[in-house]
Amino acid sequence: MKEFSFIAAIRRMLGPARAPVQVGVGDDAAVLTGSRRPQVVTMDTQIEGIHFRLEWQPPRAVAARAVEITLSDLAAMGARPKALFVAVSFPENLQSRAALALARGLCAAGNRRGAPVAGGNVAVYQGPLALTLTALGELPPGRTAFLRSAARPGEAVYVTGVPGLARLGLEALSRRGPTPRELRQGVKKFLQPHACFEELEFLAKKIRLGAVIDLSDGLGGDLGHVLEASAVGAELEPRYPPSFLRACRCLGLEPEECFLGPSDDYELLFTARQGQVEPLVAVFKKRFRRDLLRLGRISSRRGLWILTPTGRRRVTPRSFEHTTS
Amino acid sequence: MKEFSFIAAIRRMLGPARAPVQVGVGDDAAVLTGSRRPQVVTMDTQIEGIHFRLEWQPPRAVAARAVEITLSDLAAMGARPKALFVAVSFPENLQSRAALALARGLCAAGNRRGAPVAGGNVAVYQGPLALTLTALGELPPGRTAFLRSAARPGEAVYVTGVPGLARLGLEALSRRGPTPRELRQGVKKFLQPHACFEELEFLAKKIRLGAVIDLSDGLGGDLGHVLEASAVGAELEPRYPPSFLRACRCLGLEPEECFLGPSDDYELLFTARQGQVEPLVAVFKKRFRRDLLRLGRISSRRGLWILTPTGRRRVTPRSFEHTTS
Repeated sequence: MKEFSFIAAIRRMLGPARAPVQVGVGDDAAVLTGSRRPQVVTMDTQIEGIHFRLEWQPPRAVAARAVEITLSDLAAMGARPKALFVAVSFPENLQSRAALALARGLCAAGNRRGAPVAGGNVAVYQGPLALTLTALGELPPGRTAFLRSAARPGEAVYVTGVPGLARLGLEALSRRGPTPRELRQGVKKFLQPHACFEELEFLAKKIRLGAVIDLSDGLGGDLGHVLEASAVGAELEPRYPPSFLRACRCLGLEPEECFLGPSDDYELLFTARQGQVEPLVAVFKKRFRRDLLRLGRISSRRGLWILTPTGRRRVTPRSFEHTTS
Repeated sequence: MKEFSFIAAIRRMLGPARAPVQVGVGDDAAVLTGSRRPQVVTMDTQIEGIHFRLEWQPPRAVAARAVEITLSDLAAMGARPKALFVAVSFPENLQSRAALALARGLCAAGNRRGAPVAGGNVAVYQGPLALTLTALGELPPGRTAFLRSAARPGEAVYVTGVPGLARLGLEALSRRGPTPRELRQGVKKFLQPHACFEELEFLAKKIRLGAVIDLSDGLGGDLGHVLEASAVGAELEPRYPPSFLRACRCLGLEPEECFLGPSDDYELLFTARQGQVEPLVAVFKKRFRRDLLRLGRISSRRGLWILTPTGRRRVTPRSFEHTTS
């Protein structure tokens, strides 16, 4: 059974969301009403050998990465983090030292984001180290959650940073050996993702955001989720930054495939009026040290299209089904 | 690394709870303030081969069991369930049919308790089927959460039902073969636990409850948590129901060891004034079809003591560290 078909089956079983669930399965996080402010909740699992490797980074960094990845879903909804719950499943042979370093990493990363660890579960079993995190947040006063379903034809599609960069980093790590200079940025992106709370607040203050999603499945997959939820299409004119092209060349990989394919970037993908966003591009770059990249535009014609010098070509978004590697 | 020493280490790292966390790591569930009503959150992991076996019950029943076990923590805090989040990690070879039955079980069990599945995570990996559930609830108007730390000397200690029954059921299942009549109740208790929401509401309406905890580690372990959190001791005069003694005899096990030792009963253990509880015993039994068993009393002298005809004997509560079996 595949991840996405299982989620689709659960969505069918559940039917439309009912109070107190305002947004249920099918967005980055759930939104629950009935409190003073809407509560936003998300859950994420990171498993050794699939999502991370202890040979690539120490337990403390694995923990920080898991926290940022989980919080990234809150950021994409426009929520602010409040508390973190952590279920850890340890292999029987995990050293106490590694377990404690992991715990320290979870506590520190949660505190740094204003989401103290408030509970969880510990199990010891015969299996890989697995961290399942639940993040609780709430929407700031007056804000409605940013959803995947809010993209409208005519809006431009933007992303913070470069999609696919983390994939290049993962590829570099998997090939072992010393990391060439061209791939260092990608490796850092993969190992040290960060939840884009500041970026979201910056954008939300200055422009009227349409759909927002965090890139966890890769550009093709996540934009695909937006298009499906919003019942629209998109026409992309990908422009690859030179450093991205150099990194692809270094690994012998196709830029389009890396740009659109599975990648754990945890950047924000959003739609908005192009005229509102363009004046912010330089400020954003100065402040966050990465590009606000315009990818193309939302169209009423369904499907994901790549504009070419001679016309357009339909691409099938390949969603990110993690597999054991 | 053992479960309890890991949790103790995390508690030390975190220090005292800070807003919005009112009750953090160390009780059945966390309590978060800042909403109209305090939010109560708990997380629980169930792993095949440790906590359940698909050869003992079908996926749908495994799912229902996991839901009740998780909700049991909310019941013990006096909270009402609101939503459920489910992280499922599938072994690669799990049949679609089993996965879908599991999903149906999760959705149905959540709905039945007023806690619809509102989100979660799905991963496919090389490991045993693992379910990590997060349950969100809230306290009803005017209620303060029932804590482990509220036991006071002079109060009596009660439990709903018979501690150790689930352990006998687990033992019977592990020995395979047909289940003798004496063990059927225990097997049912193990396979079909239920969260004691109705029991808690019944008790909370009629008496002033002291400490409350759900029995998930076994009587000795869970009473030990209460004694430690409340900085008190307890003197027990265990009276074993005849059917419990018959079940122990059938398996060749010591009643005291089964009564106090590790067992997944998910009954409520609570402290209260004996004079308030005794008038309810008959009504409780009629309504819930099990006993409100008085175990002994809370004392200012620390430690867990068993009163014997000739004096008292100290016992060391053995906490429940699940191991692969």
